[in-house]
Amino acid sequence: MGTDGAPANEIAGALAALGDGGAGLEILLLGDKPLLEDALKGVPRELRERIILRHAPDRILPGEPPVQSVRRRPDSSIVTGIRLHRDGEVDAFVSAGSTGAVMAASLLLLRPLPGVDRPAIGTLLPTSGTPTLMLDAGANVDCRPQHLLQFARLGAIYAQDLMGVERPRIGLLNIGEEPGKGNEVAVEAHELLAGSSLNFMGNVEGRDIIRGCCDVLVCDGFVGNVLLKFYESVAEFTIGLLTREMERVGVDFEVREVFRILDYAEYGGAPLLGVRGIPIICHGQSTPRAIQNAIGVAERAVASRMVRNIERELARGGDLPTPPQSSVPAGSEEE
Amino acid sequence: MGTDGAPANEIAGALAALGDGGAGLEILLLGDKPLLEDALKGVPRELRERIILRHAPDRILPGEPPVQSVRRRPDSSIVTGIRLHRDGEVDAFVSAGSTGAVMAASLLLLRPLPGVDRPAIGTLLPTSGTPTLMLDAGANVDCRPQHLLQFARLGAIYAQDLMGVERPRIGLLNIGEEPGKGNEVAVEAHELLAGSSLNFMGNVEGRDIIRGCCDVLVCDGFVGNVLLKFYESVAEFTIGLLTREMERVGVDFEVREVFRILDYAEYGGAPLLGVRGIPIICHGQSTPRAIQNAIGVAERAVASRMVRNIERELARGGDLPTPPQSSVPAGSEEE
Repeated sequence: MGTDGAPANEIAGALAALGDGGAGLEILLLGDKPLLEDALKGVPRELRERIILRHAPDRILPGEPPVQSVRRRPDSSIVTGIRLHRDGEVDAFVSAGSTGAVMAASLLLLRPLPGVDRPAIGTLLPTSGTPTLMLDAGANVDCRPQHLLQFARLGAIYAQDLMGVERPRIGLLNIGEEPGKGNEVAVEAHELLAGSSLNFMGNVEGRDIIRGCCDVLVCDGFVGNVLLKFYESVAEFTIGLLTREMERVGVDFEVREVFRILDYAEYGGAPLLGVRGIPIICHGQSTPRAIQNAIGVAERAVASRMVRNIERELARGGDLPTPPQSSVPAGSEEE
Repeated sequence: MGTDGAPANEIAGALAALGDGGAGLEILLLGDKPLLEDALKGVPRELRERIILRHAPDRILPGEPPVQSVRRRPDSSIVTGIRLHRDGEVDAFVSAGSTGAVMAASLLLLRPLPGVDRPAIGTLLPTSGTPTLMLDAGANVDCRPQHLLQFARLGAIYAQDLMGVERPRIGLLNIGEEPGKGNEVAVEAHELLAGSSLNFMGNVEGRDIIRGCCDVLVCDGFVGNVLLKFYESVAEFTIGLLTREMERVGVDFEVREVFRILDYAEYGGAPLLGVRGIPIICHGQSTPRAIQNAIGVAERAVASRMVRNIERELARGGDLPTPPQSSVPAGSEEE
C-alpha cells in the first residue's frame, strides 16, 4: 500500500516479477484484503496461484512519527509484513511506504545484527560506469567515524553478493582528496578505513561520484539523503528542460531513453543493511518496474544468503569497534 | 595566475570586463610582470590604460597548506593582492587560485567583521527559477547552529545587495520538511532561524533545490561543497551523454546551449562573505567569461557597499550570538 499509485503499482510490479523471476518465487501481498482480491481479478491462474494475500487493514501514513506508529499500528501492512519476516513466513520484505516506519519496524522487530550499531540504507547511484552503492542514504543523520566504517563493511558485502564485485572499492565521501581533508568525522573515518582490511581507495569528492570511481561510497545519512534527493531531481529537471527545448525547435529525440541509466526505477529498492532480515525500501513514487526490480533485489539477497554473509563477516572482522548504544538512532525519524 | 589557462584566461576576462564595465573600472593584474606585459602586447590603448600591473612573482600552488603558505609566501599573487586590498589600494580581489589560500589570507589580513565567527563562501546555484545563493560552499566543514544563522544573515544581505531581492527567502538544507528533522546541528539551526528576524521559509530538501525555492540556502561547508561539486559534474556528464547520443543518431542539436543556465561561468565567482573586504573566489577551470562575471560581481559588491551593509546589519541584529573562538577554522584547509 506504499506507492502513490497503490495498490496498482505494487500489484503490477509483483506480477511482472512473478512472470520474470524464478519458478520458486511466491509473493505475499499485504493490505486491505477485499481491495487486493478485487484488484487481482482477471490475473491468469498460473500467476494468481503464486500470490498469497494477508489482510493488514491499517496503514502508517507519511509524516507519522515512525517509532510510535510502529507500536500503535500492529495491523498496518508494514508492521505485519516485518513481523511475518521475523517469524520466517517470508524471506524478505519490500515496501514503498514510510521509510521511517520500515526502518523503525526493522530495528524493533528484526533487530540489528551483532556488531552493527547503526543499520544503514544502501542505495544505488547511477554513474557513467557501473552503479555505486551509497550508504547511508538517510537512516542515520548523526554518525561517528566507526559507524562509517561499519557502513563500509556492510556495503562491501552487499557489493560482493548482489553486485558481483569481487573486491569492492570503498570510497569515503569528502571535500578533498587528501587524507587530512574534511570534517572531524570524515578525517577520523579515513583513518579507520585506511587501517581496515577493506579495499579502501580514499576520499571521493562530489565531482567524482558520477564517474563511478568506487563501488561503495560511504557517508553519513544527512549528506547521503541530500545528495540522493538532489540527484533524482536534477535528472528529472534536465529531462524536462531538454524535452521542452527540443519540442520547441522541432527536434525529434527521446531524451528520457538516454536518461534511463539515471532512472532509479532501474535499480529497484534500497536495502536496509545490518538487520536480521532483508527489508527493501522503495521510493513512494515507484513505478511497477521499480517494484519489480526491488523484488529482484530481494530475491538475489535471499539467494546469496546475504544476511548470513554479513553476520559471518562482521564476526570475523577484528577491525570493527562496537561501542554500546541504542539501536534506534534519532535519525530514524526520517521517512 | 590562478586558472588552468593562466594568465590568458585572466587577461581575456579582465579585458572583457573593461570593455563591458563602467568607465570607472580599473583592473590591477598581479603576477609575473614581464610575462603579463608580454601577454598584454597588442591590447588597444584605451583598454591598456586601465590596467595596472604589479609584480608578484611567487605563487601558491594547489595542495600547499593554506595558512603556512600565506605566511611563507608574501610575494605570491594571492597574498600581495589581499594585502593591497586591505591597504585600500584595490576595492576588491578576484582570484582563481587556491581557495584555501584566498580564505586564509582573507581571514589573516582582512579579518572577519565584528559578529562573524566564520566567514563563508557563497555560491550561486543555477535553478529552474532564479539562482539560489548557497552558503557555506566549503569554508567551514564543522559548523555549529549559530554559524548557520550567521550564514543566513550574511547571505540575506548579499541577496539584497547583489541579487536585488528585497526580502530574501532563507532555506535550511535538510533531509525533511518538518522542523524536527535532520541532524543535531540542523534541528537547532532551525530553531535559531525561526526565532530570528529573517524571512525564514523552513527546511529545504535536496529535491527542492533545483526548483529555486529559496534565495539563500544555508548549510555547513561539508554538505555544501559535496553538493556544489556534484552539481557541476552532473551537468558536465549530462551534456556529454546527450551530445554523444545525438551525434550517434544524427540529431543536430546544441545541447550545451540549453544547459547555459546550469553553467557556473554565467554566475562568476563566489564571494567570501563576512570579512572586511571583497575577496571573490573563482573556479580553477574558469573561462574568460567566468573571470569577467566574477569581476562584475566584485564591481556590484563595491558599488552597493556590501561590506558596510553587512557590518551595519550585524551590529543592528539582536539575534546573533557570537561565542568567542578562533577565526581560522580547521576547515580553511580546503582548496
